[in-house]
Amino acid sequence: MSHVPNVLIIGTGGVGSIVAYGIDYLNKSNLAIVVRRDYEKVKSQGYDVESVDYGTVKGWKPSKIFPSVEAASKGGVVFDFVVIATKNLPDIVKVEELADSVITPGKTVVVLVQNGFDLGRPFFAKYPENVILSSVTYIGSHNSQGAIHQTQSDKSFIGFFENPHLPKRIQEKKAKDYISIYKNDKNNCTYVPDTKTHRYRKLVYNATMNTVCAITGVDTGRVEFAGGLETLCIPAMKEVIAVAKADGVDLPADVINDTIHGDDGDWFEPSMLVDVKKGNPIELEVILGNLLLVAKELHVETPVLTMLYNLLKVIQFRLKEQQGTVVLPKDRPIYDKIYS
Amino acid sequence: MSHVPNVLIIGTGGVGSIVAYGIDYLNKSNLAIVVRRDYEKVKSQGYDVESVDYGTVKGWKPSKIFPSVEAASKGGVVFDFVVIATKNLPDIVKVEELADSVITPGKTVVVLVQNGFDLGRPFFAKYPENVILSSVTYIGSHNSQGAIHQTQSDKSFIGFFENPHLPKRIQEKKAKDYISIYKNDKNNCTYVPDTKTHRYRKLVYNATMNTVCAITGVDTGRVEFAGGLETLCIPAMKEVIAVAKADGVDLPADVINDTIHGDDGDWFEPSMLVDVKKGNPIELEVILGNLLLVAKELHVETPVLTMLYNLLKVIQFRLKEQQGTVVLPKDRPIYDKIYS
Repeated sequence: MSHVPNVLIIGTGGVGSIVAYGIDYLNKSNLAIVVRRDYEKVKSQGYDVESVDYGTVKGWKPSKIFPSVEAASKGGVVFDFVVIATKNLPDIVKVEELADSVITPGKTVVVLVQNGFDLGRPFFAKYPENVILSSVTYIGSHNSQGAIHQTQSDKSFIGFFENPHLPKRIQEKKAKDYISIYKNDKNNCTYVPDTKTHRYRKLVYNATMNTVCAITGVDTGRVEFAGGLETLCIPAMKEVIAVAKADGVDLPADVINDTIHGDDGDWFEPSMLVDVKKGNPIELEVILGNLLLVAKELHVETPVLTMLYNLLKVIQFRLKEQQGTVVLPKDRPIYDKIYS
Repeated sequence: MSHVPNVLIIGTGGVGSIVAYGIDYLNKSNLAIVVRRDYEKVKSQGYDVESVDYGTVKGWKPSKIFPSVEAASKGGVVFDFVVIATKNLPDIVKVEELADSVITPGKTVVVLVQNGFDLGRPFFAKYPENVILSSVTYIGSHNSQGAIHQTQSDKSFIGFFENPHLPKRIQEKKAKDYISIYKNDKNNCTYVPDTKTHRYRKLVYNATMNTVCAITGVDTGRVEFAGGLETLCIPAMKEVIAVAKADGVDLPADVINDTIHGDDGDWFEPSMLVDVKKGNPIELEVILGNLLLVAKELHVETPVLTMLYNLLKVIQFRLKEQQGTVVLPKDRPIYDKIYS
């Protein structure tokens, strides 16, 4: 890169804050971050970081902290990279709209450090000339009101969501540029030439174990004890594998076994279950909704995943009502619709 | 009947207590009841009944109250009728075993005032010469530590589960004998010649709306708002109708519409949802398990109902663990099983 790149990070939860720290630690860019909920506290006291990668750091502050995306957009800076590490809830907020004011068409590289599948699609519709990168990031990290606690080393697999309007070599170059400002001597960043395969691989867990735990209210160990691996998770995994295959991605033969044994020894609560228990909306659309859209386009039957999706839609409705996003009338309306 | 019949009622929750009161009120039998949880209180003070059918009654006590089925069996009385109005949880307690000591083979008529489907089967295996009656009872009634509050009139549809070893006319006679000691000027008892049809009719609701509400944690009104009628309940209802049809029962053409509009105007929480919210085990096996057994025997495909069942099995596991019926090891065991 010919100049020191301008980087903005949106979303500083457990993951986003460690990504931000890693970029700041390497110090090859002008870093700004958007901190919404804890702005006042972080602005005055900074973050306390307790990290398996970076050790104990008191009061860390990047040089620029903004209380909102709007505020970040008003400094006249053209961002080379906008890194989005928020939860991905398009049924509540669409990230491509959230970040609109800081994305320069044809210029800004957007890095999606988010759960989900086929995340490039809405960006390509809105920004046909921009590179959209994918970072599949494994960090065991929590941000509790400005106290960051990272228990698992940052391991990121970085590539690009394939933008059909741009040459692949440009997209690959941008992915490697991003790695050059992020990869340091503490974290572990790998360039992956095939983002889609990586995202499908993650779905073998997230569309199945994660969803079943969210619906049934138990961790993966209890799903196993209750017989749910055989009756629910494995049939769902086979459907993910079938969609991937129809999409040109051959997942490894032992992917089911590997996925299940990945939780060995842990009574592990996946992210969607944690969200349901906390009463937070779940990342249903990007994890399962987007997959079912592709399955439909490719004419792959997904009865198990579709049932999980339809049940989670109702659960999501409940979570939104609990949050106040949905408000129902006091008296239940009566419709004269005829059902059959 | 040639003598005054001996009647024992097991299970005196909201429903069982009103059935008992109705039988005592008519006074054509020697009534005994088993009261487990509230025995001491009921033995000394009786029940306080606040009933839409019978008005306000303070301190009602049937002449014989037993603290257990075992105690009831030790009085040397041969029971003509044993009425069972407990919750039906064969994965925890099998009713045919619970009542074993008070059932005289070839003699005692068993009346099952319980939710569920195909409830005669385990009794016919254990008591091939006994008549097993079905009472589909609609009573809005709660028993709160001896205070009975009945808000909806007792409307019962009584018939027999068809015992293949006995002539139908004998089974019909016993059903009518039971009605003759139960039906009074306040309640509403109807003999139904076809119990199976009635039980299927009830399943159109209980195997679908009830199960979907239990899984998603919302009432039937919210299921409608969230789109779950079309994606979940109606497809499930169609499977119930298909099983019934294969079993020789043609449900009315408007059964789906009638079932859904049955909750019009109410944010109604069906029984399984109430149980899940209270942390009580659900009547999964008798409502859905028994239906799926028949579907399998008749080779009817039930993908939606099967998914609901498999999810509820995991939820039931959670409820049992919460109740202490299931205890898991502190450390999750690791199995070397290969999943595929």
